[in-house]
Amino acid sequence: MKIAVDAMGGDLGLQITIPGAARAARENDLDVVFVGVEDQIRPAVIRLGGDQSRLSIINAPEAVSMGDGVFAVRRKKHSSIRVGIQLVKDGQADAFVSMGNTAAVVYMSRQILGTLQGVNKPALSLLIPTLKGLTLLLDVGANANCQPEDLAQFAIMGKVFMEQVMERPNPSIALMSIGEEESKGNELTKQAFDRLSSAPLNFIGNVEGKDLYSGKADVIVSDGFTGNVALKVSEGVVETLFHMARREITKNFFAKIGLLLMKGHLKRIYKRVDYSEYGGAQLLGLNGVCIIGHGRSNSNAVKNAVRLARDFVAKRVQDKIREELGRSVAPGEAKA
Amino acid sequence: MKIAVDAMGGDLGLQITIPGAARAARENDLDVVFVGVEDQIRPAVIRLGGDQSRLSIINAPEAVSMGDGVFAVRRKKHSSIRVGIQLVKDGQADAFVSMGNTAAVVYMSRQILGTLQGVNKPALSLLIPTLKGLTLLLDVGANANCQPEDLAQFAIMGKVFMEQVMERPNPSIALMSIGEEESKGNELTKQAFDRLSSAPLNFIGNVEGKDLYSGKADVIVSDGFTGNVALKVSEGVVETLFHMARREITKNFFAKIGLLLMKGHLKRIYKRVDYSEYGGAQLLGLNGVCIIGHGRSNSNAVKNAVRLARDFVAKRVQDKIREELGRSVAPGEAKA
Repeated sequence: MKIAVDAMGGDLGLQITIPGAARAARENDLDVVFVGVEDQIRPAVIRLGGDQSRLSIINAPEAVSMGDGVFAVRRKKHSSIRVGIQLVKDGQADAFVSMGNTAAVVYMSRQILGTLQGVNKPALSLLIPTLKGLTLLLDVGANANCQPEDLAQFAIMGKVFMEQVMERPNPSIALMSIGEEESKGNELTKQAFDRLSSAPLNFIGNVEGKDLYSGKADVIVSDGFTGNVALKVSEGVVETLFHMARREITKNFFAKIGLLLMKGHLKRIYKRVDYSEYGGAQLLGLNGVCIIGHGRSNSNAVKNAVRLARDFVAKRVQDKIREELGRSVAPGEAKA
Repeated sequence: MKIAVDAMGGDLGLQITIPGAARAARENDLDVVFVGVEDQIRPAVIRLGGDQSRLSIINAPEAVSMGDGVFAVRRKKHSSIRVGIQLVKDGQADAFVSMGNTAAVVYMSRQILGTLQGVNKPALSLLIPTLKGLTLLLDVGANANCQPEDLAQFAIMGKVFMEQVMERPNPSIALMSIGEEESKGNELTKQAFDRLSSAPLNFIGNVEGKDLYSGKADVIVSDGFTGNVALKVSEGVVETLFHMARREITKNFFAKIGLLLMKGHLKRIYKRVDYSEYGGAQLLGLNGVCIIGHGRSNSNAVKNAVRLARDFVAKRVQDKIREELGRSVAPGEAKA
């Protein structure tokens, strides 16, 4: 299996992508092809030392910054993002992994790879650390406007991912809403509720925002606007709390000692809630495998993202999504 | 000025509503009328001791629980919520304060009081503690489905509240979205962006979920579905973090000592982020003043909620909203 890795992606770029992906190649018996500025990648790979027979490079000299809009990205024919995705399209790589500009990867992968047959919209899905393990939230931002049928498809794709990759049989599926009763929600969720109820899913009904972290459901389905706001709000709360804690605690000598004694533990908590550790977000329903890591990723997160890409391919998630969607037919169509 | 207080509301009921509201009456030169089960309220008031000449009771024997749906509430003609709101309607109280079932208060106040002239939908607004002070988020759940014009009205009402009650002149207004660029968002926010841009507001554009806690804007406008999810996600994150911290830290002796040394500081942080301290959510655009506190409120929060109700009335927020809405006309209508 060969995984294409965007060597230029992430806030730390080559510093993390090269060692992270190289470790993933070694540990998982994979070939990795680094995509990006060859002149910068080659010395970084050489510095790694050891056996490099499974690492290769494809030159893609144009840079896409985290701030670039999709229009800028579209014009760059030789960006690492575009070239990497094209490798998947051409069958020269089994999957593409990037820690770069999420909007750019979502846009380009949709343009180049398209969706699986029967899928309306690919969904960006992310594993969220909760009190009881990981919950998959989707969509977290690929589709700002969704129809009820889209949400039903997201549920099926999320189910397949959790079953195949996370080995969680018959995962529970919930709908993000503003109250548990069926009557609570907006027009979209009320219609989606009906579709989810009649689909061949372990649908447990609506959940509220607070349940994103309670571990109540294995999969939580949402339109991409709401899902993105939920995710970004979480980031904001965590950052604000840690910031307040630092500010509050450094005011007082005893509290500082207290902090010192607790430091390792607080770090461990931060790591647990910091989803950049979990590898990355998966685009589900795309006609090709594409994993997008957090810009803040470290090399360990890159390693995890590459391993996730391997699992995604090895466990034939794409085929299973196609099968499940075909089998269950979109619930809406069945009614028509 | 006379404020009607739902004596039965909140998880702790009379234990917190009676002393909290009585203190507010004393400190702010107010009359308070307690609404609820008279036989329970009277002994609690007597136990307070001191001068009780400004406290009175109106009997409303039917209980509304936090779990009651609006249909159950509608049937209860003698609940403290319905009777309290009716007092405002009849001019026998200047405002109503409840720590009870939010959905029930929103529903009944809308039914009984109606909206101010020119207001499409009343918005539930809440002050959120941020790194730089308080930000007003609205709507946090009164309206799951909104139109662009509703969001423009929310912005104007939020502006008036911040100017009058929080004394923040020309407050900055932002739109909750999934990217800062005008092009980011869903159909609703894209249309709302246009209206907000042309309204007589200090509109600073889109913000993302993480900015809810950064203090970037004085007012953040959102449909009630998204706003509610954002708020509940925040609650979930805070609870989960504190839960994880407790679990992690009690494993280790040194960490426990560290926690002990930091305890006061952590509590202070928790208090800062716990919005139940800030008095309550305001229904803006209603034809009457109605403040809804968090069910978890303590007596201090009740006191703050009553004081907030007083400010709301004293600073003539209702009149100013009517004026501003009249002056700016709905931007949409101006175009028609």
